[in-house]
Amino acid sequence: MHAAPAAAVDADRLWQRLHALARHGAREDGGVDRPALSAEEADAKRTLIGWGAEAGLLPFTDALGNLFLRWDAGDIAAPAALVGSHIDSQPTGGKYDGAYGVLAALEAVQALQAAGMRPRIPVEVVAWTNEEGSRFAPGMMGSAGFAGARDTAEILARRDAAGIAVADALAAQRALLPDIPERPLRRPATLFLEAHIEQATVLETHGIPLGIVTGMQGKRTFRVEVTGEAAHAGTAPRAGRRDALLAAARMALALEALTTDAEDLVRFTIGRFDVAPNAPSVVPDRVAFSIDLRHPEAAMLTRLGDAVAATCAEVAGPCEIAVAELSAAMPQRFHAGLRSALAQAATSLGIASMPVASAAGHDARFLEPICPTAMLFIPCRGGITHHPAESIEPAHATAGAQVLAATLAQLVAA
Amino acid sequence: MHAAPAAAVDADRLWQRLHALARHGAREDGGVDRPALSAEEADAKRTLIGWGAEAGLLPFTDALGNLFLRWDAGDIAAPAALVGSHIDSQPTGGKYDGAYGVLAALEAVQALQAAGMRPRIPVEVVAWTNEEGSRFAPGMMGSAGFAGARDTAEILARRDAAGIAVADALAAQRALLPDIPERPLRRPATLFLEAHIEQATVLETHGIPLGIVTGMQGKRTFRVEVTGEAAHAGTAPRAGRRDALLAAARMALALEALTTDAEDLVRFTIGRFDVAPNAPSVVPDRVAFSIDLRHPEAAMLTRLGDAVAATCAEVAGPCEIAVAELSAAMPQRFHAGLRSALAQAATSLGIASMPVASAAGHDARFLEPICPTAMLFIPCRGGITHHPAESIEPAHATAGAQVLAATLAQLVAA
Repeated sequence: MHAAPAAAVDADRLWQRLHALARHGAREDGGVDRPALSAEEADAKRTLIGWGAEAGLLPFTDALGNLFLRWDAGDIAAPAALVGSHIDSQPTGGKYDGAYGVLAALEAVQALQAAGMRPRIPVEVVAWTNEEGSRFAPGMMGSAGFAGARDTAEILARRDAAGIAVADALAAQRALLPDIPERPLRRPATLFLEAHIEQATVLETHGIPLGIVTGMQGKRTFRVEVTGEAAHAGTAPRAGRRDALLAAARMALALEALTTDAEDLVRFTIGRFDVAPNAPSVVPDRVAFSIDLRHPEAAMLTRLGDAVAATCAEVAGPCEIAVAELSAAMPQRFHAGLRSALAQAATSLGIASMPVASAAGHDARFLEPICPTAMLFIPCRGGITHHPAESIEPAHATAGAQVLAATLAQLVAA
Repeated sequence: MHAAPAAAVDADRLWQRLHALARHGAREDGGVDRPALSAEEADAKRTLIGWGAEAGLLPFTDALGNLFLRWDAGDIAAPAALVGSHIDSQPTGGKYDGAYGVLAALEAVQALQAAGMRPRIPVEVVAWTNEEGSRFAPGMMGSAGFAGARDTAEILARRDAAGIAVADALAAQRALLPDIPERPLRRPATLFLEAHIEQATVLETHGIPLGIVTGMQGKRTFRVEVTGEAAHAGTAPRAGRRDALLAAARMALALEALTTDAEDLVRFTIGRFDVAPNAPSVVPDRVAFSIDLRHPEAAMLTRLGDAVAATCAEVAGPCEIAVAELSAAMPQRFHAGLRSALAQAATSLGIASMPVASAAGHDARFLEPICPTAMLFIPCRGGITHHPAESIEPAHATAGAQVLAATLAQLVAA
């Protein structure tokens, strides 16, 4: 039952499409710069719609610019199985992050067609809007809006660094696209499958071509503001200083100690650190820094995140602190039945697979609460991602599409 | 002999000018933000040139934008007695740091004129360029260049945080100023007197309105660059990270430990601290920070400064560091004869004075090696400086100008 559709995956077509799509927004260094809702992304969408049309897939969009290519012989209103990822990139992005998941989904649908199958449940290949969040923060905007996790009006009002609102960027991109129907956000879905590059080295290290993603680590983010008092570097005695920089340095190291675990599962990062007035001969009176804290287990993430404020306060000395939690997303586990279906499909095709955790966030995070959701990973060389040097093996790309095809054949086709 | 010129000091005019000048670059919180070579500083210079013109003083400048207002009945080439300070401020500066010394000098010259005196030696009221060093590091740029302690071309090539070179900032400011003659740097001078706010609390604590400055503590400044590797905050395991921020935090605390002395004489400050790429979800790959290190004794300053690089290297972990010494000025003693002249003038006027050390650096540092140099301090409330709350008493401002006038009357007028 699995063999025929998987065997119909056209490895060359998939590989050529990956590189054809990468020409939209291509960087001179071999990478891709394809911002969400840009003209470059519009070109990529036109290309996708064209490939879908060759396979008889009907294009749709919605109020957030998500693109759907539907394989559907019957009722246009029936809930669909969604399969895909995103096609926006980081400014210094690679060819495969996101794009692979969309094109593997399209290839899987065409493989089912080539194997003479028909959809029992409609299948939609999807490209979610602004997963990366590098143009409009935060990311996973299209999937979050689709799933009802964020308010549409709030999303539409967000602005990029140039001051352009999502609503205006959407309108500008739509003017560059063919006139396709718009369907509502928050439609029900029967399942969501997302293939993606791993963005880590677990699969590469184990020499395994396929990861069945167990779930996604949780993430809490904070902003810490340390307030001291400005003073003259040459005259203010040490005893009377309220040096915000030294206090913040103590906090950074205290937080590092708090989050150092033997298993090396905690991800703790201070990525942003702004000092004021930031002049060489003035004792800083203010530091604001970010904390990005992630862990695969809810209990540990809760314990560590809840300890952030007290850990900072303990070493604040004469400075004042204000700690604000900016976001909190608990760890997720993907649907056991779907994970099992993916693993069984791999086994039946003779493709080695292993369970892996996802350290990065993906659109699947927002689909998981509304429908059975799972992900599969293929290796990427050295774990390098968000970088022009992002690289994958053709054989791994093919294996991922074959497992998608075999899984869809079992779950939604006849 | 002293009484007449000192009595001619116009206390109201001096006080009003201090507050008129503070309007150029005024902050809403009552402070002053008047960067070196800015449009705001150009406005302040135009005002100074105007006040000088009312007193018949001839304006000059030089290749570094230092402003001179010359009181001179005779030979334009004759070396002058220089009296003044600076008019640039810290970004969060007050009204009196620097400005007081320039306006007290102008008031002293006008008092001599009002007392019917003439210069035996020409007198130049001077405002040195970029004393603060907050726009272009290091500070005391104009006086250092004038005195030949730094190379002019090297100074002109320095850039501010926005990438603007000193040469270009000078040209931009000169376009905003009246066309005044330019005279060479490294002209000989017969003496230099600088009045300044104390920026400490010795005078206030003792209830003494005037300090005769004995000398200046030494100062060494450094720039430390820490290079790690950027990585994804969500995926990069702690064990493989090369986090430049955490390494820099360790260096800050190791340097703090190195410089903590029981006597609290060491002044150690990290005032500037720049992180790249400074994004919340990226492990920083680069931190550049400043070190400002001061001590009144040469031996201690040498020992501590020489230990900076090794102290940073010891805690650099997997990061690389580059330590550059930007400036080194050993402790100084001011000219005994000039200090004595200032003290005698104060005594003869019935103004209490005491010897005080200067913890801060001043332009006088660079004049001291080339001509007899001395400074006098007036108290500033609570020692608060480089801050909008900087505050002085009108009576102290007057007393300083009176002692300057009486001293000049004795040394250079007839």
